[in-house]
Amino acid sequence: MNRSSVKELLQSDKFLHEVHVKGWVRTFRSNRFIALNDGSTINNIQCVVDFENTNEALLKRITTSAAVSITGTLVESQGKGQKVEINVTNLEILGDSNPDEYPIQPKKHSLEFLRENAHLRVRTNTFSAVMRVRSKLSFAVHKYFQDNGFNYVNTPIITGSDAEGAGEMFKVTNFEANKAPLNEEGQIDYKQDFFGKETNLTVSGQLEAETYAMALGKVYTFGPTFRAENSNTTRHLAEFWMIEPEVAFMDLDGNMDLSEDFIKSVLGYVLEHCEDDLAFLDQRLTQEEKSKPQAQRSDMSLLEKLRFVVDNNFKRVSYTEAIDILRNSKPNKKKKFQFPINEWGADLQSEHERFLVEKHFKCPVILFDYPADIKAFYMRLNEDGKTVRAMDVLFPGIGEIVGGAQREERLDVLKEKMAALNIDEKELWWYLDTRKFGTAVHSGFGLGFERLVLFTTGMSNIRDVIPFPRTPQNAEF
Amino acid sequence: MNRSSVKELLQSDKFLHEVHVKGWVRTFRSNRFIALNDGSTINNIQCVVDFENTNEALLKRITTSAAVSITGTLVESQGKGQKVEINVTNLEILGDSNPDEYPIQPKKHSLEFLRENAHLRVRTNTFSAVMRVRSKLSFAVHKYFQDNGFNYVNTPIITGSDAEGAGEMFKVTNFEANKAPLNEEGQIDYKQDFFGKETNLTVSGQLEAETYAMALGKVYTFGPTFRAENSNTTRHLAEFWMIEPEVAFMDLDGNMDLSEDFIKSVLGYVLEHCEDDLAFLDQRLTQEEKSKPQAQRSDMSLLEKLRFVVDNNFKRVSYTEAIDILRNSKPNKKKKFQFPINEWGADLQSEHERFLVEKHFKCPVILFDYPADIKAFYMRLNEDGKTVRAMDVLFPGIGEIVGGAQREERLDVLKEKMAALNIDEKELWWYLDTRKFGTAVHSGFGLGFERLVLFTTGMSNIRDVIPFPRTPQNAEF
Repeated sequence: MNRSSVKELLQSDKFLHEVHVKGWVRTFRSNRFIALNDGSTINNIQCVVDFENTNEALLKRITTSAAVSITGTLVESQGKGQKVEINVTNLEILGDSNPDEYPIQPKKHSLEFLRENAHLRVRTNTFSAVMRVRSKLSFAVHKYFQDNGFNYVNTPIITGSDAEGAGEMFKVTNFEANKAPLNEEGQIDYKQDFFGKETNLTVSGQLEAETYAMALGKVYTFGPTFRAENSNTTRHLAEFWMIEPEVAFMDLDGNMDLSEDFIKSVLGYVLEHCEDDLAFLDQRLTQEEKSKPQAQRSDMSLLEKLRFVVDNNFKRVSYTEAIDILRNSKPNKKKKFQFPINEWGADLQSEHERFLVEKHFKCPVILFDYPADIKAFYMRLNEDGKTVRAMDVLFPGIGEIVGGAQREERLDVLKEKMAALNIDEKELWWYLDTRKFGTAVHSGFGLGFERLVLFTTGMSNIRDVIPFPRTPQNAEF
Repeated sequence: MNRSSVKELLQSDKFLHEVHVKGWVRTFRSNRFIALNDGSTINNIQCVVDFENTNEALLKRITTSAAVSITGTLVESQGKGQKVEINVTNLEILGDSNPDEYPIQPKKHSLEFLRENAHLRVRTNTFSAVMRVRSKLSFAVHKYFQDNGFNYVNTPIITGSDAEGAGEMFKVTNFEANKAPLNEEGQIDYKQDFFGKETNLTVSGQLEAETYAMALGKVYTFGPTFRAENSNTTRHLAEFWMIEPEVAFMDLDGNMDLSEDFIKSVLGYVLEHCEDDLAFLDQRLTQEEKSKPQAQRSDMSLLEKLRFVVDNNFKRVSYTEAIDILRNSKPNKKKKFQFPINEWGADLQSEHERFLVEKHFKCPVILFDYPADIKAFYMRLNEDGKTVRAMDVLFPGIGEIVGGAQREERLDVLKEKMAALNIDEKELWWYLDTRKFGTAVHSGFGLGFERLVLFTTGMSNIRDVIPFPRTPQNAEF
């Protein structure tokens, strides 16, 4: 007989027929009720064992996380909480799970403990829900761009260019540690390394994506990027997935429109396609919030927050306006900010972004036209000569979720900027070529995928929304 | 006025209205006809310039790869080869392209030359077609798995486990070259490196994906993988994208079904969604074949080959049968094989795979049940004790495109295998846990994405189907 998934059976309205299902035991209570899960949905199907006619030894092997094969009759459930259940006629243990050894028992474990068991934590409700939502969110990203005429571009992971300066890079090498050969000048002879030059792990695919946008028009990347920074926070990973669209003939206004439309679309997609998982995560967050003091609790539930973002316009505010608001804000006047805002030109810290988003505007905010000095060399200089066409999308609870810009399309201005920052033109000859041959206005942004998953799932630590997190001192699995 | 894409305009059947388009000049002939492309399609739109009333200096700036903004009237075309064209009323040069400097002129360049200009080659017909097909093929991969209830899993790129043995690995480090600190025993003190241990770039996400399959049921990876092997061939890259589905409760037969259904589905998707690009690539290959001696030409055109794979069953042949066929084959008897097949147990070389696929069966072939000795430790041992439930899918012109297996689910057998190969159990404690707690039959495979793109586009060098190829001595861009 064909095996059905738990999801299919739970949706079935055809009763009294024989069904076959395989999965893992979540709980087994009263020697009778198995809650069975196979990963197809967060919901378990109840399998009722006729314990009086079942071998004692077999009953003992029905333990949490044991893999079982069940045949039985699908019937309407008499109990609460489920529409259907299976009256078991045959049960086979496929793989035992010794309860004295299995680390994840049906009780509340700390997220820290589960992180140490990242290979097993996905067997819990919380992590299976997070990872299914993550998967659907990934697909929503691809679907959005493909539906809108973008081409997916796989920019290189190993890169020989280190000129972008988005962050510290990991070195990639084939040399044996402390045995790299030297050249005649006594320097490391990278010509003998695998790629014939010094190579690193990419911090961004943007520059390469730009070369593709200048031919295919609309492109996006979605791949892993890396930061060798010793940031032990709940918002940073050494290895994370980044989404970077890049569009020819699009200016900053178009870029803001794109980022807003994109985020609303992918959140709308998961609201539609992850109903059960999001309902669970919504409940989970509400429970968690109850342990917090009233003042720190969120006004909105997870689902309300997601719907709020989908249904409301992002507030667009220039950096200059934002500085005015911050300078005149209560926390600034009462010296509550760790970094007081005194003058135009200050770099905004997380505390300022959170004030703007969570206290002042109470909605997602797009800040734009930042001072040139605090932004990257490739951003389009405004006519005022002091600001650039940069934008950041700020989210409640997350802070910066998108960073983007209209790119500097003028060769002479770009070269001046690079010279001022001592970026070698020879390093980026190919990037400069895009401005030499058929240059045009173009824009793009980067979105750290895990921050989006964090927001969507209501989890609070970024290590809990990627299967096997990479952080300082941690590359287990 | 809103800008239209070239693709939209070419599909339009509304004439005599004003349109606006931006793109790059592909060719400009007779001082009159601009072939304009914006990346949205392989097809150009013809823009007819009224040269008698156009400034001479402006006309001179209409050069290959110049970016232009055009307003005009969309009309039915009088000329051959296109349905519509634009009578230009206004033309603005957005970005010049000096023909004395622009390296890619409208003539045939060698693929080698274009590879050195990987940032510009996507502006050619061939590479724009390849990269659009690649993008659609990527989406087809995600769509297939998502439609079939799989969850996308991002397995780690930086890995601390080096036990899989799928190939040579690149080292990832934060240590300065030749300045790694030593511990008290005089060994490199990796505890002081970023992750507190030796780390490498992943060669496969399979082992981690298995841990997820044993919770979510059906999962797949699609991400970059790496080989630090000095293979300068047309089929190898140091950095390539791999697709790895992994399914709980699925045996080798199910695995063969999945691989066949998957490949047919994604090829079917691009046949439907990349008609123009594939028609171009089909023509391109036919032209290229004409320069070959008759005997080396393919019997089928590119489109015929793709349809053949979609429409025909893959031939399933056991390794043992294959050895029989090879042993009795003409080339073996006439000693034409570089590696003669004398006995059962021999590892199959590319020449043997090609004979089976291209000469003997003349269709894609799935070989299964290989000798245990020539396959990886995690493959399920058959009851005969000498073969494993491995499978390879072999494609004409490509060779191995898929390698997969039913995994060894029995803890004791797996441990024995590891011991025999000196694989430290401590390295893979988490992998062994999947066999300890609720183990079950499960299977999966790996498909090198670039080999699939190679087959789909009819290109002959794998460096030409990834935007910025990484190969020995080459990490430019």
